[in-house]
Amino acid sequence: MDAKLVRLSMSIEEPLFEKLERLVEGGGYGNRSEFIRDMIRDRLVEEEWGRHEEVLGTITLVYDHRKRELSEKLTEMQHHKHHNVLATTHLHISESICAEMIMVKGHAEDIRALADGMRSQKGVLHATLSMSSTGESLN
Amino acid sequence: MDAKLVRLSMSIEEPLFEKLERLVEGGGYGNRSEFIRDMIRDRLVEEEWGRHEEVLGTITLVYDHRKRELSEKLTEMQHHKHHNVLATTHLHISESICAEMIMVKGHAEDIRALADGMRSQKGVLHATLSMSSTGESLN
Amino acid sequence: MDAKLVRLSMSIEEPLFEKLERLVEGGGYGNRSEFIRDMIRDRLVEEEWGRHEEVLGTITLVYDHRKRELSEKLTEMQHHKHHNVLATTHLHISESICAEMIMVKGHAEDIRALADGMRSQKGVLHATLSMSSTGESLN
Amino acid sequence: MDAKLVRLSMSIEEPLFEKLERLVEGGGYGNRSEFIRDMIRDRLVEEEWGRHEEVLGTITLVYDHRKRELSEKLTEMQHHKHHNVLATTHLHISESICAEMIMVKGHAEDIRALADGMRSQKGVLHATLSMSSTGESLN
Repeated sequence: MDAKLVRLSMSIEEPLFEKLERLVEGGGYGNRSEFIRDMIRDRLVEEEWGRHEEVLGTITLVYDHRKRELSEKLTEMQHHKHHNVLATTHLHISESICAEMIMVKGHAEDIRALADGMRSQKGVLHATLSMSSTGESLN
Repeated sequence: MDAKLVRLSMSIEEPLFEKLERLVEGGGYGNRSEFIRDMIRDRLVEEEWGRHEEVLGTITLVYDHRKRELSEKLTEMQHHKHHNVLATTHLHISESICAEMIMVKGHAEDIRALADGMRSQKGVLHATLSMSSTGESLN
Repeated sequence: MDAKLVRLSMSIEEPLFEKLERLVEGGGYGNRSEFIRDMIRDRLVEEEWGRHEEVLGTITLVYDHRKRELSEKLTEMQHHKHHNVLATTHLHISESICAEMIMVKGHAEDIRALADGMRSQKGVLHATLSMSSTGESLN
Repeated sequence: MDAKLVRLSMSIEEPLFEKLERLVEGGGYGNRSEFIRDMIRDRLVEEEWGRHEEVLGTITLVYDHRKRELSEKLTEMQHHKHHNVLATTHLHISESICAEMIMVKGHAEDIRALADGMRSQKGVLHATLSMSSTGESLN
């Protein structure tokens, strides 16, 4: 990346500054600028999700596969939106518990509807939707 | 708040700077410093959440695989913590952009350290960690 | 070979029958019986290969998820052998067709039994088992 | 499936017949017809692979990730053919050994070239290509 650099300055309360320094160091960042750039990109992703653009995300499900017809229902829901579902990886955590991570792409509202639909099934113990990006807008 | 203010400066690529300005304005923030302080506080909240629990989670990465040695570094980091990494699914989003979802299990602080370590690599455009549970406590 | 011949009959859907006739002819076989005997011998060879070794392998399934209770049955079979199943990645190929790749590890005969059990389910259109190694003996 | 059934008969040597019966039973098939139909579908898939049609397959790799630049090279090769690579799931078998299963779709010759290209990299201990189908021709 050969983009021109802009130099900017800001003020910050000392206690917050100290916590910032701790975050930068703890996160393994080379320097503070890199850390702040990273936070800006996070916000850009959130904004993407709010603006009804094409987004990328991961739905993580933890469920009890012994629940009657649950596997079938979850498979059906994913097929119904198969243009949004890129891939699903399934792990057998124990005799009864499954964890599934589902990479999804599409309009934010479709993705949210799919996640909500799965979360509300009986037998689904936990569901999270992590919002990410196709990367187009992050450079 | 009457805390002493610290003045700091940073550099940022011009296209990202322009997006930052748009976010500051669009978010109704009075100035850029306030916006950045807000992002830092968000990170602190995440950071302090559930440090010592056994968790199951998914790390989602979006990165530019053309960045020299990045794939190798990410693979190495996962191997180094291979007791925490259950499986990684990789999708090729475009000629340059990769998305990866990594199912992880272990102490929250180890998981977070792994996520932070990967997020701070150059070429990683976005990283999220969604925390779930192994299901034991959810029944 | 002067072995006694056994006469047997079977039923087959017409479209598949037509494809069979095409294969028999295209393969240069004198008659259909010879072709079927040949397929049986191929299976026997696979079956007898490496029964007692510790292997790593991938089972690839192609199936029609609309088949009643099939998803549920396949999930159950994998959970039943969850010590052998490392991870399953599922892709939605079309509205009706699923493809699944399942990484498995364990004694060859257990792995084979799992693959055979899934292959023989109604609605499973194709199943392959590719045997690899955990790498210990390959260095 | 409501396709018309065709009834056909064949003759087979008694020892082979006995082995067939063993395979049908050992494979968990309800009856012999189902088993023979399955073998026919296997042959159809092989034919598909020979006829330069669109095929589906899984490449399984076992490799030593410590080999310099290997991860990077394998990622690059997959990106170069990213229209053929549907998803890759990676497991960390030990501190040094990785196993990867890669679902691929496309012209048989492209798929074979990709598998061969990866197999021939230094540090790749084992590579298999299992040939499957998008399911279109198997009904």
